[in-house]
Amino acid sequence: MGRLPQGGDLINSIEEFCKKALVQMATFSVIGAVSSATIGAYDQKQQVYVTFKEEAPLEIVSCIGNVSLKDGKPFIHAHILLADEQGKTIGGHLFSETIIYAGEINLQELAGKPMERTYDSNTGLMLWESF
Amino acid sequence: MGRLPQGGDLINSIEEFCKKALVQMATFSVIGAVSSATIGAYDQKQQVYVTFKEEAPLEIVSCIGNVSLKDGKPFIHAHILLADEQGKTIGGHLFSETIIYAGEINLQELAGKPMERTYDSNTGLMLWESF
Amino acid sequence: MGRLPQGGDLINSIEEFCKKALVQMATFSVIGAVSSATIGAYDQKQQVYVTFKEEAPLEIVSCIGNVSLKDGKPFIHAHILLADEQGKTIGGHLFSETIIYAGEINLQELAGKPMERTYDSNTGLMLWESF
Repeated sequence: MGRLPQGGDLINSIEEFCKKALVQMATFSVIGAVSSATIGAYDQKQQVYVTFKEEAPLEIVSCIGNVSLKDGKPFIHAHILLADEQGKTIGGHLFSETIIYAGEINLQELAGKPMERTYDSNTGLMLWESF
Repeated sequence: MGRLPQGGDLINSIEEFCKKALVQMATFSVIGAVSSATIGAYDQKQQVYVTFKEEAPLEIVSCIGNVSLKDGKPFIHAHILLADEQGKTIGGHLFSETIIYAGEINLQELAGKPMERTYDSNTGLMLWESF
Repeated sequence: MGRLPQGGDLINSIEEFCKKALVQMATFSVIGAVSSATIGAYDQKQQVYVTFKEEAPLEIVSCIGNVSLKDGKPFIHAHILLADEQGKTIGGHLFSETIIYAGEINLQELAGKPMERTYDSNTGLMLWESF
């Protein structure tokens, strides 16, 4: 459990922590607030991500994600839900250029062979092997 | 941590995994996307679930749930939050007929005597014993 | 994993459990429903919380939080997402005067020296030391 750096990029901060701490597989959740955010959704027909940017202070109601390997390096996949001062929410896939105002992370490292992301031709996404 | 099957039913896939892996008590979270969804809310006055169906591709912003026993079998209880391409969200109790497009689950099996659901006359729900 | 008391205050119930069970550091998630709720957001400019009250039965789509020490006592910090019968959501920082209708908690105690909240002059919030 720990505090993420104010002014840091949410995804990059978690990724840097994992690189330094040699974490290759983990799950995590974050609560806190951002000063701006970039989120998106996957267009399942076009197989591309659609993104949008929020230039406003917002609460991180939930941010759930995982760490696994992509191209041999720790890769963060997370989805985030944000709320404004009226409680109005927006959510989706978390992208970089989401800036931490205050962030509290619970990260649980997982033992065993790290899972790796490879290209999945059905979805066009980088996914794990099915179990 | 693992990948859920594309085209599978979200609840049934987790339930089948638990039956095969002999998991009787667990907590889990899922992120990913669905191609359609059935969610609902409990009408606390009428003591019935109200459900509605979304026939659209949506991001799974969060899906948090648990596994315990009901009638001696692993039973999944989960709540889900979905978002469209504008980040607009809908959420509630997760029902079957929610179809996985891509799903990444973090499931943590819990040790000890599995908790069992029994009828709670106050709420009309199948709940655990209070602690 | 356990059931929270119907009619109890969500934050206070978790805090009381931690005091009785001598839990000083933990992470948790809750799903269920409330009969009323008080949530809010942090005004990053004015450095005060803005709160609002919902006097209606709502699903707890997710409630993610942590336990650490503040003034030497277990302190609950949680964010919550609620949904009505149409799936419409509101979310933010969880405050007291949020009344449990049905609540299932997954609380994981963490070992090691409990983290403590101290005043952070940048944000005006009670935060942990940065790692």
